[in-house]
Amino acid sequence: MHKQLNIQVLLTGNEVMAGDTIDSNSAYMAQVLAEHGLKLSRKVTVNDDETQLLSELEHMAQTADVILMNGGLGPTVDDLTAQVLAKLSNQPLSINADAKAQLEAWCERRGQPLNEANRKQMLMPEGSSIIPNATGSAPGIDLRFRHTRIFATPGVPSEMRSMMPLILERVQSEWQLTSQTHVLRLQTFGIGESNAQQLINHSAFEWPTSVDLGFRASAPQMEVKLTIQDTQFKSDQLACAEHIHDLFGDHIIGQGDTTLAQTVVQLLAEREQSITTAESCTGGMIASQITQVAGASRVFEAGFVTYSNTMKNKMINVDPALLAQHGAVSEPVVRAMAEGALDVSKADYTIAVSGIAGPDGGSPDKPVGTVWIAYGTAADLRSLKLVWPVSRQLFQTMITACALDLVRRHILGINPHCRYVEQRSSSPTSII
Amino acid sequence: MHKQLNIQVLLTGNEVMAGDTIDSNSAYMAQVLAEHGLKLSRKVTVNDDETQLLSELEHMAQTADVILMNGGLGPTVDDLTAQVLAKLSNQPLSINADAKAQLEAWCERRGQPLNEANRKQMLMPEGSSIIPNATGSAPGIDLRFRHTRIFATPGVPSEMRSMMPLILERVQSEWQLTSQTHVLRLQTFGIGESNAQQLINHSAFEWPTSVDLGFRASAPQMEVKLTIQDTQFKSDQLACAEHIHDLFGDHIIGQGDTTLAQTVVQLLAEREQSITTAESCTGGMIASQITQVAGASRVFEAGFVTYSNTMKNKMINVDPALLAQHGAVSEPVVRAMAEGALDVSKADYTIAVSGIAGPDGGSPDKPVGTVWIAYGTAADLRSLKLVWPVSRQLFQTMITACALDLVRRHILGINPHCRYVEQRSSSPTSII
Repeated sequence: MHKQLNIQVLLTGNEVMAGDTIDSNSAYMAQVLAEHGLKLSRKVTVNDDETQLLSELEHMAQTADVILMNGGLGPTVDDLTAQVLAKLSNQPLSINADAKAQLEAWCERRGQPLNEANRKQMLMPEGSSIIPNATGSAPGIDLRFRHTRIFATPGVPSEMRSMMPLILERVQSEWQLTSQTHVLRLQTFGIGESNAQQLINHSAFEWPTSVDLGFRASAPQMEVKLTIQDTQFKSDQLACAEHIHDLFGDHIIGQGDTTLAQTVVQLLAEREQSITTAESCTGGMIASQITQVAGASRVFEAGFVTYSNTMKNKMINVDPALLAQHGAVSEPVVRAMAEGALDVSKADYTIAVSGIAGPDGGSPDKPVGTVWIAYGTAADLRSLKLVWPVSRQLFQTMITACALDLVRRHILGINPHCRYVEQRSSSPTSII
Repeated sequence: MHKQLNIQVLLTGNEVMAGDTIDSNSAYMAQVLAEHGLKLSRKVTVNDDETQLLSELEHMAQTADVILMNGGLGPTVDDLTAQVLAKLSNQPLSINADAKAQLEAWCERRGQPLNEANRKQMLMPEGSSIIPNATGSAPGIDLRFRHTRIFATPGVPSEMRSMMPLILERVQSEWQLTSQTHVLRLQTFGIGESNAQQLINHSAFEWPTSVDLGFRASAPQMEVKLTIQDTQFKSDQLACAEHIHDLFGDHIIGQGDTTLAQTVVQLLAEREQSITTAESCTGGMIASQITQVAGASRVFEAGFVTYSNTMKNKMINVDPALLAQHGAVSEPVVRAMAEGALDVSKADYTIAVSGIAGPDGGSPDKPVGTVWIAYGTAADLRSLKLVWPVSRQLFQTMITACALDLVRRHILGINPHCRYVEQRSSSPTSII
């Protein structure tokens, strides 16, 4: 472990202040820092205003070891960063030779002459050095001011991101840090943040102080993050991961960035099996998520979006008598959809969904949010009803995720009576 | 017009500082303020740390008329806002009667007893008043400190949002503001931000200073925002909107929040016509976007995700000889897909796409990013090739948008030789 550096972020940009752009750059910076055991202590955002920028920098430099500036390096008159840093450090702006070389090379690669805008981007406070830009025109600026090291990066996310490794390297070298941070990430589905926290709080396991626990929920999945600041705590981290596996069990779908669709595609590809979809209320979202996975063609040939009763019959042979007798949102119909899709596509696995996404179309008997899902193989086709009364889009997102997760459970032969089925099933007996 | 208030935001939360949560709350606040002629001048984010929060508040109060605090009102020990505001104003924390009444009512509605966490949320600095919470348990805090009025809101976005109208009302009443701001928003597709800016710069039209121009790009659409601070400038705003219409022409798809899928669904519903989709490389995304629109069932019955050659034949009768002769990514095949989908579904309009989303599957002849699109009616079926070599997911997103936009142009009888077709068509003659 090492001394905790004081690192602060200064964001500039009228678009960010006006709320027209949501800042995700500083979150990215914080994550990169965290993966190397460093932490942001403060973040300030201001308009493109010279006086304000100067006053914030002066104020920050009193406490910060490192200032990460972002934005204001573009070619327009609103872009004030170089000029503000020159005033701050009381140095003239002049053409930086490295910046010039980079901009000339950039223009040459694109077969275009240097223009006024590019010339502006060569100007830097004397005494500063550049941070090369791998993807765009504007070089970053690396400047020392009193005891503080300032790194100015462009507002374009890809350009800022490409500069972070070098910035990190310079910070580590100046303060002689050797990062031992190690992050282990688990993806879960069907378990909420508060549930997850409660399970951990109520378990007898004594959580080691060396392992930092974090959750990041973004519908439909939730990520669990286990961070250690030194590899000597690796065994603690693994013990925590094992404990999380014990507690969350089959709600864990994989490590790293795995999505449900990726998991299903991979499981099927390993088994050389395939899947088909018959969708009513999800309207193609399940097929779309499967085909967003690179290499999906190994496991997916056909998806049927059968939005009307007529098409349920015509495309996948659902018996009109079933539709007339039970209605489209019913167990017999969703099973017939699943079987019909299997029959036409000759796939091994099938998913069928029929429900009421809303806002219209509900009835006292079948309120908005009601959905029947059938999934599995010809030999083992299962079905269940869920009631999930949320907005149309969240309903489609969550039901798509449930359908994929139920197939995952089927392939792996694990318990289908999971938390969300228990919680969202209005008549739990129908699924036992 | 009125004196410009100095409004600053103070965000608290370890998750936000760690980058685990991306702050969209402050963007929302800025937008609501902007719609009433008010502007944020500064935004600071810190960890849940009492000393740091106190020092930021002291510093802010020197310049701010209004401070919007966000976060730290929850039930846990990390939630420090009430306690920090008590220290700042040098007032004891005590049970606020209005907060108590609100929390009791909230618990009663949910049939649960008051717990320790709720009791903590009743505690406020003496002399402060509550901001009622319409959707959650924690009331907001409204406190005067010296010349500054501080509004503390919960970090949960829906709860913060529900409090903004009342906060705005209190600010307007205290500073006797009458908002005359009016925002006019146009949605565009197929014209980039720099192109748009260039078109405006190079036109002879003299842009009135009373109208603020803003762009918000988020693939695939770009929003154009025209803001006036006083309704007396309404005619200027309309003149600018007309000018934008002249410049951007049929790249404007609608006003407000309109999406391409909404526009297509609405145009078809008005005409009592329907549409079908035959998708290969977009894998169901077009169908999914259409069915995300409430009421899509009026215009959409059937979508075919024909990911393999076999299924192109089996589901929508594409002649195997065509596939063998030209390959799946070809004009004859995509036209046959479009016709086959029409034939099975009996829809009026059709969209078919077949392309190479990558990362694998490209060839020198048909590189990754190549796509054929066929669209229109049985009587007027058009087809064109685009080459859009970007990441798999962006490719699917952009091609889905193009397909919907081309149908929009077909329905409206407007020029299909638009900017993106010109720019992304490697052999432009094939579409004339």
